Amino acid sequence: MQAEIICIGNELLTGLVENSNAGYISRRLWSRGIAVREQRVVPDSIAAIVEALKESLRRSEAVICIGGLGPTDDDLTREAVAELLRRPLQLHREWLQHLEQFFARRGRPMPAANRKQALVVEGSRLLFNPRGTAPGAIIPAGERRWLILLPGPPEEMAPMFEEEILPFLEARREEGKWLSRLVRTAGCGESELEEKVKRSGLPGGVDLSYVARGGEVLLQLKSCAEDAAERLENAAARLRKELGRYVYGEGEQTLAGAVAALFMERGLTLAAAESCSGGLLADSITNIPGSSLFFKGSLVTYSNEAKEKLLGVAAALLEREGAVSEPVALAMARGARERLNASVGAAITGIAGPGSDASGKPVGLVYIAAAGPWGERCLRLDLPGTRRAIKERAVQALLTLLWRMMRTEEP
Amino acid sequence: MQAEIICIGNELLTGLVENSNAGYISRRLWSRGIAVREQRVVPDSIAAIVEALKESLRRSEAVICIGGLGPTDDDLTREAVAELLRRPLQLHREWLQHLEQFFARRGRPMPAANRKQALVVEGSRLLFNPRGTAPGAIIPAGERRWLILLPGPPEEMAPMFEEEILPFLEARREEGKWLSRLVRTAGCGESELEEKVKRSGLPGGVDLSYVARGGEVLLQLKSCAEDAAERLENAAARLRKELGRYVYGEGEQTLAGAVAALFMERGLTLAAAESCSGGLLADSITNIPGSSLFFKGSLVTYSNEAKEKLLGVAAALLEREGAVSEPVALAMARGARERLNASVGAAITGIAGPGSDASGKPVGLVYIAAAGPWGERCLRLDLPGTRRAIKERAVQALLTLLWRMMRTEEP
Repeated sequence: MQAEIICIGNELLTGLVENSNAGYISRRLWSRGIAVREQRVVPDSIAAIVEALKESLRRSEAVICIGGLGPTDDDLTREAVAELLRRPLQLHREWLQHLEQFFARRGRPMPAANRKQALVVEGSRLLFNPRGTAPGAIIPAGERRWLILLPGPPEEMAPMFEEEILPFLEARREEGKWLSRLVRTAGCGESELEEKVKRSGLPGGVDLSYVARGGEVLLQLKSCAEDAAERLENAAARLRKELGRYVYGEGEQTLAGAVAALFMERGLTLAAAESCSGGLLADSITNIPGSSLFFKGSLVTYSNEAKEKLLGVAAALLEREGAVSEPVALAMARGARERLNASVGAAITGIAGPGSDASGKPVGLVYIAAAGPWGERCLRLDLPGTRRAIKERAVQALLTLLWRMMRTEEP
Repeated sequence: MQAEIICIGNELLTGLVENSNAGYISRRLWSRGIAVREQRVVPDSIAAIVEALKESLRRSEAVICIGGLGPTDDDLTREAVAELLRRPLQLHREWLQHLEQFFARRGRPMPAANRKQALVVEGSRLLFNPRGTAPGAIIPAGERRWLILLPGPPEEMAPMFEEEILPFLEARREEGKWLSRLVRTAGCGESELEEKVKRSGLPGGVDLSYVARGGEVLLQLKSCAEDAAERLENAAARLRKELGRYVYGEGEQTLAGAVAALFMERGLTLAAAESCSGGLLADSITNIPGSSLFFKGSLVTYSNEAKEKLLGVAAALLEREGAVSEPVALAMARGARERLNASVGAAITGIAGPGSDASGKPVGLVYIAAAGPWGERCLRLDLPGTRRAIKERAVQALLTLLWRMMRTEEP
């Protein structure tokens, strides 16, 4: 089965709002063996939506439209679908009642404009939306062709997609089609990984592709054999065995999430000291639900004064070595560990650019350090890219260091 | 003039790599009066690329293709364009020399695969790429039709787009076409803004649309009058006058950037204390180049113990009021200000979810506080959305508070 994703809205097309829905839906579809043929963003115009739907329905079995289901004049998805399929829009009484209650609970009368959110194309299956006023819909659109409408806000779209759309499409996927699986690695380059994999080989009927992203390499396994699920399971097991400590997770798992799981599993706590990463390490860790169970906090010390006062880094050391140096990185990691009374301290100091500091050291020079019950480690990095890319790569490298220390140098 | 953006690559279509190029190019085109009709992502397949190019060239004058210019077997953009236009690929000797030198400087022979990066479609203008091995190209494709090829990595694409493509397209934009301008506001709701704008009115021939995003509202002004630039200038001036302190910037300016500019202008320094935002405030501020000039740092205190030890919040206060409370938010702001010796201290404490803390207070309850030479302020927020959305909205609200305090309550 093949799908296309059409996101509708001028706010996406002008680049004023980020399109996170297309990537999310794509990853989830591929994981269930449904190929994504195209993602597109089209304007709030009936003619443009109809044209895109036509082109996509010609190629693909499932066309997923996101957005344009609100109450305002520029929400036109319903009307475009009705025009394309030449079917009337009908009032859905139950949903109209739900809308009236939705506003009544908020102590307001329902604005007249919202009434159109209860209109559905004849022959649709309406999908209840407990989080908002726009319902979704599944609309048969010919022999093995389905049009799927979803609301634009990610917190309304995602649960509906998981609960209704994925099972619906999976049930209609034909046997023996592509299934895929994602194995995530960190701390090893793409070509070195490739050599290791070639040495061990993969089970037959399984394709492998590599995607390098920041400091990580993702390995995507695909198979269209009849026993694809089993083959992928075997291939993933062989990769885990061959690549050992480089594999940190599968699927939607993140490196920060994998590190968090290790800390929680072992009952260890973490404290951080950040200079050039400027809080991004703490942000990445605190995106993980439950991180308060092991993460004590981070001292974002952007000035030398703060490094002295809050982390106890000696003024003489800062003077002699400069803030971007191995001894200072180690002193920061120790300082965070002690001051926050944590099992492990981690630190990042470097020059994110665009300019250098007074020392004249090069942009992209970064030291990362970790101090724990099993000793201390410090690495020097020379990172390419913009200010933001350097921050991201430094954090990724530190998470990789923590991951490797936790896995190999057992406390 | 109308443009379309075609991003090429399976890694985008599988959702494994984020597509940041489409949004960036869209914003930049709109700012110069070039409308974006569609953004699309297509797979690494000659047939798919040819089909997309055909559809897009039928509708739009400029079709911008990003990616698929690398040396590997799945880089097929050059071949697809040659097939579509029925023109041969020719070896570009100068670029081949550049490639050979590129590798020689790195002490390696050029792999045979890279040779194809010196192939250009007959009639192309090659665009030099000082940052990588893939050149760009501008290819005339019929009466007022241009195909533009750009490399995929954002740090190679963006400078080439700014230096070569924007001026090229702007010179070919016909007079009297749409120009646009973006006015950015924070701290005032969409409907209240709309009322204020309606009261004052806008100059004729200027369209206005609102985009709410996190805690901000962006106002997009458009005009296709002959003197569009002048009309937009007048309209923007009227908005700045009418909306006064809510307008924090224009164009690509961010709220964090505007706050940073105010701090630097006034020679003030900032220190932060973060609980539920977990470092995201510090991260947002340190994304601004030069932020080390005013930002002293942030204490990310995820535990009560850290709030006591690092910020001097009294244990009795935490016990009595709970970590998520107005008195604790204010104590955190004061603590950061004192400990980091800054002019202004700012704090965020709240419950980002998905679960509540031991107090049972609701997810989304957040207090933000600021303490400065002009006094103290604390606001209570009830934020909707996911863990990440709550973090983002809390940071946005704090930046808005700082912005308003700096603008209205002069120190």
